[in-house]
Amino acid sequence: MAVKVYGFIGSNAVYRVLATLYEKNVDFEFVTVNMGGMEHRRPRFLARNPFGQVPAFEDGDVTLYESRAITQYIARKYASKGTELMMKDPLQMAIQTVWMEVENQKFDRASWKLMEIAMRRVRGGPELVAEYEKKLSDVLDVYEARLKENKYLAGDSFTLADLHHTPNIYFLMSTRVKRLFESRPHVRAWVADLLSRPAWLKATSLSPW
Amino acid sequence: MAVKVYGFIGSNAVYRVLATLYEKNVDFEFVTVNMGGMEHRRPRFLARNPFGQVPAFEDGDVTLYESRAITQYIARKYASKGTELMMKDPLQMAIQTVWMEVENQKFDRASWKLMEIAMRRVRGGPELVAEYEKKLSDVLDVYEARLKENKYLAGDSFTLADLHHTPNIYFLMSTRVKRLFESRPHVRAWVADLLSRPAWLKATSLSPW
Repeated sequence: MAVKVYGFIGSNAVYRVLATLYEKNVDFEFVTVNMGGMEHRRPRFLARNPFGQVPAFEDGDVTLYESRAITQYIARKYASKGTELMMKDPLQMAIQTVWMEVENQKFDRASWKLMEIAMRRVRGGPELVAEYEKKLSDVLDVYEARLKENKYLAGDSFTLADLHHTPNIYFLMSTRVKRLFESRPHVRAWVADLLSRPAWLKATSLSPW
Repeated sequence: MAVKVYGFIGSNAVYRVLATLYEKNVDFEFVTVNMGGMEHRRPRFLARNPFGQVPAFEDGDVTLYESRAITQYIARKYASKGTELMMKDPLQMAIQTVWMEVENQKFDRASWKLMEIAMRRVRGGPELVAEYEKKLSDVLDVYEARLKENKYLAGDSFTLADLHHTPNIYFLMSTRVKRLFESRPHVRAWVADLLSRPAWLKATSLSPW
């Protein structure tokens, strides 16, 4: 009945799930999926995730995919263990949900494209880089104002709304995009906080980057 | 202490919220935001949504934005009214969350680009159209298999996981992309079901399309 994570070290979505498990002190087994060998396109893996992407997740009879759905499951199922990652008050939870949506709809879309360009997965001339750096800057301006008033996005405490950002930030801090985070003092302090959390350091201790 | 939706008729994100309110039989006041007059960039609106986008939402003292965060708030706050839009069993809720994430990460990203091209908001040559039609087709192949086994994405009953899709589908059904939905029988039946729900018909009765 153990928790299993199927993925590979280096995937942002996998780090998102590993960091959540470490925050919650949940033991798990990591099963490496051989992407080079196209294992993720074979029937056995597709039965775990029909989209053929990592991570896939098992907890006993429960099979899930989509990293942000897995983190929410872990945070609810293991609510009493480790770091409290969900706001308990319904109104505060609504605010947390707003910021989880902002991450998904705005931060991830802008930062993902910049990561793809950095990894040379998409052809990105200076115009495309400028377009997405502008999008990310506009988003980070709102974060700067938010983080001036609140230590974390959902309020006084660290939640999944913050954690969901960490993988993309971690990657981009090794690129030129770093300056967009560093030039905003409250964003910079928040980033330093996210990247120094013990659970994050543990999740990325095997990072290839 | 009334519920208020700030937006304009024709916005997909606004329709997502209106359909949820009609499903839940929650009375509300609709406040038109004059986008042409740039009202959404003025301080009064930015205090409601710092990203300057519609919809913004109020319920008494509660102020929220991001359409999918608003729908989750409404579904939880008014749980006992109208259509049950959230699975009650924690495991079923985890499955619903997976499909809400699939909508957000996969369906919305592919379909949004095709809508932007159709609205001529982005320059879209035949190559870009083909790229995003392929992305959407791959996603709909997984939906077809899922909807063969389950009437709705999260299981036997209609939930927010389905509702979140309706606005983009509604728009694309008036474009050439329609054929991608029509050519998959279980997707086609699901689309017909979504578009004929009384709450959806009510939400779009003022549609400019």
